Amino acid sequence: MLLPELKLRRDKIRSLMAQQGIDAALITCNVNLIYTYGRVVSGYLYLPLHSPARLFVKRPNTIEGEHILPIRKPEQLPQLLEECGLPQPSRLMLEGDELSFTEYNRLAACFPQTEVLPCGTSLIRQARSVKTDLEVELFRRSGAAHIRAYQQIPSVFQRGMSDRDLSIEVERLMRKEGCLGIFRVFGQSMEIFMGSLLAGDNAAVPSPYDFALGGEGVDPSLPGGANGCLLGEGQTFMVDMGGNFFGYMCDMSRVFSIGPLCERAEQAHRVCLDVQEAVTAKARPGVTGEELYNTAIQLVTEAGFADYFMGVGQKARFVGHGIGLEINEAPVLAPRMKQELLPGMVFALEPKIVLPGIGPVGVENSWVVTADGVEKLTPCNEEIVVL
Amino acid sequence: MLLPELKLRRDKIRSLMAQQGIDAALITCNVNLIYTYGRVVSGYLYLPLHSPARLFVKRPNTIEGEHILPIRKPEQLPQLLEECGLPQPSRLMLEGDELSFTEYNRLAACFPQTEVLPCGTSLIRQARSVKTDLEVELFRRSGAAHIRAYQQIPSVFQRGMSDRDLSIEVERLMRKEGCLGIFRVFGQSMEIFMGSLLAGDNAAVPSPYDFALGGEGVDPSLPGGANGCLLGEGQTFMVDMGGNFFGYMCDMSRVFSIGPLCERAEQAHRVCLDVQEAVTAKARPGVTGEELYNTAIQLVTEAGFADYFMGVGQKARFVGHGIGLEINEAPVLAPRMKQELLPGMVFALEPKIVLPGIGPVGVENSWVVTADGVEKLTPCNEEIVVL
Repeated sequence: MLLPELKLRRDKIRSLMAQQGIDAALITCNVNLIYTYGRVVSGYLYLPLHSPARLFVKRPNTIEGEHILPIRKPEQLPQLLEECGLPQPSRLMLEGDELSFTEYNRLAACFPQTEVLPCGTSLIRQARSVKTDLEVELFRRSGAAHIRAYQQIPSVFQRGMSDRDLSIEVERLMRKEGCLGIFRVFGQSMEIFMGSLLAGDNAAVPSPYDFALGGEGVDPSLPGGANGCLLGEGQTFMVDMGGNFFGYMCDMSRVFSIGPLCERAEQAHRVCLDVQEAVTAKARPGVTGEELYNTAIQLVTEAGFADYFMGVGQKARFVGHGIGLEINEAPVLAPRMKQELLPGMVFALEPKIVLPGIGPVGVENSWVVTADGVEKLTPCNEEIVVL
Repeated sequence: MLLPELKLRRDKIRSLMAQQGIDAALITCNVNLIYTYGRVVSGYLYLPLHSPARLFVKRPNTIEGEHILPIRKPEQLPQLLEECGLPQPSRLMLEGDELSFTEYNRLAACFPQTEVLPCGTSLIRQARSVKTDLEVELFRRSGAAHIRAYQQIPSVFQRGMSDRDLSIEVERLMRKEGCLGIFRVFGQSMEIFMGSLLAGDNAAVPSPYDFALGGEGVDPSLPGGANGCLLGEGQTFMVDMGGNFFGYMCDMSRVFSIGPLCERAEQAHRVCLDVQEAVTAKARPGVTGEELYNTAIQLVTEAGFADYFMGVGQKARFVGHGIGLEINEAPVLAPRMKQELLPGMVFALEPKIVLPGIGPVGVENSWVVTADGVEKLTPCNEEIVVL
């Protein structure tokens, strides 16, 4: 990655550090290294407020360059800073929501004279929530690849397939279009394979994970997603795969039906499209996540589908979420979210309704906030595709 | 999962707790919940030394039963314990190597009168390192499924494929045989998609990750594994996919060649098979990981392949590793590992040599330690398959 882009990102972090009187950051978690150095390494990016960043690398042993030094263990950091002519930090931030308790304490103990703060995660996530032009462009390209994969879904569907069989073919389509496969989520208890394909009543099964919909899964060690059920006539399924083509988690869901659907399902789907239209018509800089959530709930309630919106029984408490290097970033479109949209924020909006006996309907697209509205990053057919 | 199996596992943890004067454990990380409760939930398993375990569940909201209560946030825990008639813990262990610094502190703050210890991770991992009969049986079944997938690899290979193209087809074979896809690793900086397919010189490219071999990958956000190179005549590739069929990470590598190989490659492969034979002939309860590592290194050195063993330039510092719910458990077959093998331990042994201009050779199997030796969990052809 080019240095001007990295400098832009580092300066966004620095500007937030300056507001809190923090004079250095020690960055070692993979997504934050991708953000600030452009790739994963095993090591530490040391980001001082007023000097160029230094990279201290354990692995791979082939990385060299200006301001890059090898390191074996974090206890060498103070000495290495001295060798770089850098002062020891006064107020140092670490990635407190990502580092384990043990690792955080080990790093903090390397700087006994320093005030160490755990706010690194929240501050870097704040910086990451507003994308650079290059990041938005990577999202656009991801959206195009994501669309190409989904457009081939009818060609791999066969009657008599299980949800799991079809999911495997869709995963392959995603991979063939360049998807890296790995699905990065913030928070240690959140996990999923490449995404989900939810069919019929399985879409209403609650899971332990905080995704929009759940699913039973096929094994108690991963209770989410497809459960092996047959894709039956008159039912729907929803494909919601993670679109990680260049590190960025593009998010997009589309609905398919086996044969024609009843009027009620068509109506529910229409309500979700209406929610999308109403929310995105309102979305612009200055609007809060809460306002957008309320817009969605009001419309769904008026249409009489509130009991089936975002799950049945156990419901997701959001209608959209920021996306970036992880699938769950700021902003969140949910109750009590007072954070205002800013230009460059990227979010997924996913109004979904689950109809008992039929399955899931609705839509999900990824959007970037522009100067005066939003731009769709995943533009393609949103009608239910009848198979 | 049946209660007697869960009780067996919980009692293994309790016995280690008793040795350290710990009277309760609070368990909330996914792999440890799978181990002690049989499935992932969002919530907390509270394990007292002398009373039955209690499960406090946030999600899914459908889990009910004896000793199971709903919870919204961890701050309710002291009150809920009281309602269960349980005393507040005196010495409580948390999962200090897995919980984030922030989450650990939040949980610890719920018990202001309690001495809170971060040793939960290491203690539970110690308990997990010796498998129960059921766990070994799940590994056997995983091995059988893993073998079925690998045996179909020649049928999906086509001349002119890239390593990535073939990897996608192998991933599909694994999924069709029941692989859950998700690859669980201990340690926040370790990540990989389903496993790796390494061909030719790409197998020598060092990566940031601490796996046996590296690979360049196709994107700097995930620099490991296949890099898109063509599978060329006279070269080898190694398939090393994670065999997670029931939660347990079965591990197995096999080598294929495009057309016949030179004598030197055949010889190097034979050395790896010899290493496997020598190490597993020696492996039994009481032998240390270090002894087994030294056995491997000595044999490889005598054979003249030390410079190419476990990578070139950047080498892995182990020849085997424990496996279980995660791919990297105890014991580790590496220098300075004084831990002795115990019956029921399961490990992967992966002697691998990378030959410049040719590619990787060698083998990897999963093994369980028996009363007087080891049993292979992944028995199938170990010769290089010529395509």
